[in-house]
Amino acid sequence: MGGRSPPPVREYPYLLPSLRNLMTDLLSTVEARLGSHLLTSAVPSDVLSFQNPSGTSAGAIDIRSGSPDSPIYFILESWLHCELPTGALNIATLLATLNTSTDAPHLICELIQSSPTSLLLFLDLFPRRDLVLHPDYLDEFYHQTNLEKPRQELAKLPQVQPYFFSSLYLRCLVSPTVNLVLINVGGSEGDSAMEDIIRGPVRSTCKEIVEIWLDKCANSRKQLGDAERADLITRDDMIISKSIEVDLVQNLPRMFGPDVADRVVREIQKAFRRQENNG
Amino acid sequence: MGGRSPPPVREYPYLLPSLRNLMTDLLSTVEARLGSHLLTSAVPSDVLSFQNPSGTSAGAIDIRSGSPDSPIYFILESWLHCELPTGALNIATLLATLNTSTDAPHLICELIQSSPTSLLLFLDLFPRRDLVLHPDYLDEFYHQTNLEKPRQELAKLPQVQPYFFSSLYLRCLVSPTVNLVLINVGGSEGDSAMEDIIRGPVRSTCKEIVEIWLDKCANSRKQLGDAERADLITRDDMIISKSIEVDLVQNLPRMFGPDVADRVVREIQKAFRRQENNG
Repeated sequence: MGGRSPPPVREYPYLLPSLRNLMTDLLSTVEARLGSHLLTSAVPSDVLSFQNPSGTSAGAIDIRSGSPDSPIYFILESWLHCELPTGALNIATLLATLNTSTDAPHLICELIQSSPTSLLLFLDLFPRRDLVLHPDYLDEFYHQTNLEKPRQELAKLPQVQPYFFSSLYLRCLVSPTVNLVLINVGGSEGDSAMEDIIRGPVRSTCKEIVEIWLDKCANSRKQLGDAERADLITRDDMIISKSIEVDLVQNLPRMFGPDVADRVVREIQKAFRRQENNG
Repeated sequence: MGGRSPPPVREYPYLLPSLRNLMTDLLSTVEARLGSHLLTSAVPSDVLSFQNPSGTSAGAIDIRSGSPDSPIYFILESWLHCELPTGALNIATLLATLNTSTDAPHLICELIQSSPTSLLLFLDLFPRRDLVLHPDYLDEFYHQTNLEKPRQELAKLPQVQPYFFSSLYLRCLVSPTVNLVLINVGGSEGDSAMEDIIRGPVRSTCKEIVEIWLDKCANSRKQLGDAERADLITRDDMIISKSIEVDLVQNLPRMFGPDVADRVVREIQKAFRRQENNG
């Protein structure tokens, strides 16, 4: 990763201390459990961290593919930081995807802070089946794992309100137990109230759901027929490409200019295509 | 329908005047536009209206099938009323379904009032395709119809808050532009504040979305291949049976006792099965 500036992904230089601790903790948990399944990163240093020409935007992305005999497709970790006239925008993302040795859900955890008093949390297990046609899948990964409990506990806090993606397509990708909330803390207490809610309920919700994914999904194996496998690949391609497109591909040019954005997007798509060839 | 008591479905004897006006207006609009497509009701009089042995619960259901050459599968209209220790529970439903001459969405409009100061509105076009795999379908029926506009207008009212079904499966059936909200009005103003919000924004939202369904869905035709048609039937069976099951089949025994519930459920299933045979 060299001595380049800005620092690489796991340093999260611009995040609130509580968010930085949370993200490094989640990454450590995931990597400790998946360690032997993950290949060394092949992301070049000018994508591991990057900034725009004027230095007002910075970012870091790392992608690690799963080993061929593992159920891991790839893990994407990233942070983006941007100085805006209205304040700083910070986005931290962990996307952990599985290959077709299972149909278990992918994991998405995204934290977006656009002001010291507000935080958007998007935390979900992306379903890889059409849940209308597969109530057994809904039962296995969403009922039996009791994902509704942490969702309800977070949702009942007075600072928490439901959030709706402006993209209708993104709304279709999420599960019925998605945590998709905007957290607003009072103006006068500001940073410390936000730190408290992150260290408390946000942290425990994230950790609980990442543990459920590690226990019930990341170890899962399922023998799929050829047609089922083909359906799964089609659906995965839509889910991953669209979620990356809406989230990263659309924001990067605005934040970093076309040259940096092209370089980063190309690297993401390379990792994605390499995996597609592996099936 | 005879001189039986309680009165039949379109009289809505227990609803607030504003809700009764809204439901009769929606039914008139739908029937005026679909009139020639609808067969005469074949529902027997003891299902057209019914009550429990003690007379504390009453209900009425009518089902009209579409004519064989129409795109209409069936229209179900119902109201249920129940005296509870905590007050009266009133449920009014309009479910309008299409057959496989099109894949356009079904219409659901349900209004549930469990106290004078609260109202649950469930208003949606049920998608009949997996929207993750069919962004073109999402575009045709949800983007181009601008269904997000009435949803946002209703959602921004201070009395309106998002609602979550306790059934995870029901959450999977709805579209990304579903209107699923709980409306709470202040205690002191009570009934009149509720009447105002129903006569104003609730009414205009319901009418706008029913008009969109009549314009863009109820007239729609699409040539489907055999495999697509088989998929559509499988999905429709799940959507309709599960939405009726969660909504009616589970509540009827509790409200009316097993005998009345069995009779009503059998009639609903008969209409549903007859339609299945037609394809």
